[in-house]
Amino acid sequence: MSLKIAIGPSSFAAQDDTPMKMLEAAGMDVVPNPYGRRLTEEEIIKQLNDVDGLIAGLEPLNKRVISSSPKLKAIARVGIGVDNVNFQAAAEHSVKVSSTPDGPTRAVAELTIAGMLSLCRQLPQMNADMHAGQWNKVISMGLSNTPVLFIGYGRIGRAVGELLKSFGPDILVCDPTVNAEDLKHGETLVTLDQGLAKASVITLHAGGDKVILDKKAFDQMRDGVILLNSARAGLVDEQAFLSAVSSGKIFGAWFDAFWQEPYNGELLNYPNVLLTPHVCTYTRQCRLGMETEAVQNLLRDLGIKL
Amino acid sequence: MSLKIAIGPSSFAAQDDTPMKMLEAAGMDVVPNPYGRRLTEEEIIKQLNDVDGLIAGLEPLNKRVISSSPKLKAIARVGIGVDNVNFQAAAEHSVKVSSTPDGPTRAVAELTIAGMLSLCRQLPQMNADMHAGQWNKVISMGLSNTPVLFIGYGRIGRAVGELLKSFGPDILVCDPTVNAEDLKHGETLVTLDQGLAKASVITLHAGGDKVILDKKAFDQMRDGVILLNSARAGLVDEQAFLSAVSSGKIFGAWFDAFWQEPYNGELLNYPNVLLTPHVCTYTRQCRLGMETEAVQNLLRDLGIKL
Repeated sequence: MSLKIAIGPSSFAAQDDTPMKMLEAAGMDVVPNPYGRRLTEEEIIKQLNDVDGLIAGLEPLNKRVISSSPKLKAIARVGIGVDNVNFQAAAEHSVKVSSTPDGPTRAVAELTIAGMLSLCRQLPQMNADMHAGQWNKVISMGLSNTPVLFIGYGRIGRAVGELLKSFGPDILVCDPTVNAEDLKHGETLVTLDQGLAKASVITLHAGGDKVILDKKAFDQMRDGVILLNSARAGLVDEQAFLSAVSSGKIFGAWFDAFWQEPYNGELLNYPNVLLTPHVCTYTRQCRLGMETEAVQNLLRDLGIKL
Repeated sequence: MSLKIAIGPSSFAAQDDTPMKMLEAAGMDVVPNPYGRRLTEEEIIKQLNDVDGLIAGLEPLNKRVISSSPKLKAIARVGIGVDNVNFQAAAEHSVKVSSTPDGPTRAVAELTIAGMLSLCRQLPQMNADMHAGQWNKVISMGLSNTPVLFIGYGRIGRAVGELLKSFGPDILVCDPTVNAEDLKHGETLVTLDQGLAKASVITLHAGGDKVILDKKAFDQMRDGVILLNSARAGLVDEQAFLSAVSSGKIFGAWFDAFWQEPYNGELLNYPNVLLTPHVCTYTRQCRLGMETEAVQNLLRDLGIKL
């Protein structure tokens, strides 16, 4: 008898059907997401009825859902975060949980470099001018010798650093978990105070939800600084940022994560703030890589030989 | 008696006065550009009266100008191109001519990567959507394993290739002056036909003014290709490009060089065409580097020890 696999993410295998074919090739009976959007608690309970494994997105996989799914043996999250999973309930019901922590690294790093170069070289402004019929040549900031502060230098921060190195910036690293001897040539460990005072560009790659950039931090920054946030909105105090951008302290910024999503707030009024709708991981390569890895994790956790 | 140096480019030392200070420290008597724009033939003749050396931009340094400047001994161009200089006249009047061919390489390569990443990751479109209040998540193309065709692999092409490598694309090189054994791991030499048929991204770094991308070339490209032109507008047939972009063959394009400049033509109507006003070399780092090098060249050609 073949095993039954439910699919959580509505986008699963939408761009490339390789992960779906892997499930089928392994003899799985696949139950797709019939709603075309994230499932609610009631919907996921219904979806998991009689199901052995779940390819998971951000559905609420709480105690009630897991307890209501007696056959469920494995949850394979497509992505990093597993805050939506109640691990205690999973353990009590012997449900194995996996995720794809490495999957998004490259895509996030790539979009961070895109945002950094765009803002430094004033691409959005010049493009807007050109499309408005204005030939307005501006001298902008290259990355060569430019001090770039990394707040957080874990998996993603380091990946951004690797891509950035050949552009020749001065990389300043602020991360309490990093030692100076862990850093390579061209990276300097700094305190937050030192980094904020020196940096022309600041890029956030910290974990957690504690505010790091508050009013005091913005006051410490150089005038005309560029800020990039692909990490979490909560790292930045919204009002403090709005004050800094309206005062001109911030020359340009990029946000991919927001205090409320979908975001429709005050940042829309600032043409020097580049905005993307939380799509750091939204590349075909990244989706395919994470989906493929999630399928492999799920089949492994269900004891199926590949 | 101190030597007299005229300054051509109106932007000389505008961002950073180091090059001007170098001239002054060497005891030069500096005559600035009084017009704040490129000098005409009559103006440059007047400007060069009684002058020993010129820090040159793109002023017309033709036979008449050079013949009218009996004291002139050296022309130091801030930049690569010296099409504005009549070399025969310079030789006849023993005027030494120098330029800064390496200066712009890094700045051009950097903006090319900015354009490539922006278009691949659909940054301009998503930013425009967000600013219009639309939260429109789109899966885009990362650079990992993406076939990128370089048409021309000289100084600038190679610099772009170096910056691009850590993003993991398949680099296809079309350049009649390059041999396969000159290429490093991860670069493949192709004919133009092979490259056009394979590439998802095409970036122009060829010299000369001969059209390379004509109607036939666009027909050979894959649907949804991305085109980058930081080199010369003349490498692309304008009408053939307009047909390709209006038919949807071109998913996105970036132009920094145009068939007429200032450019105010039909490309303004296409939001998927990223436009910059010929600013590839317009970084503070690049200007400073070229201006410094031009001053060094000029002082050397005037026989002044630094």
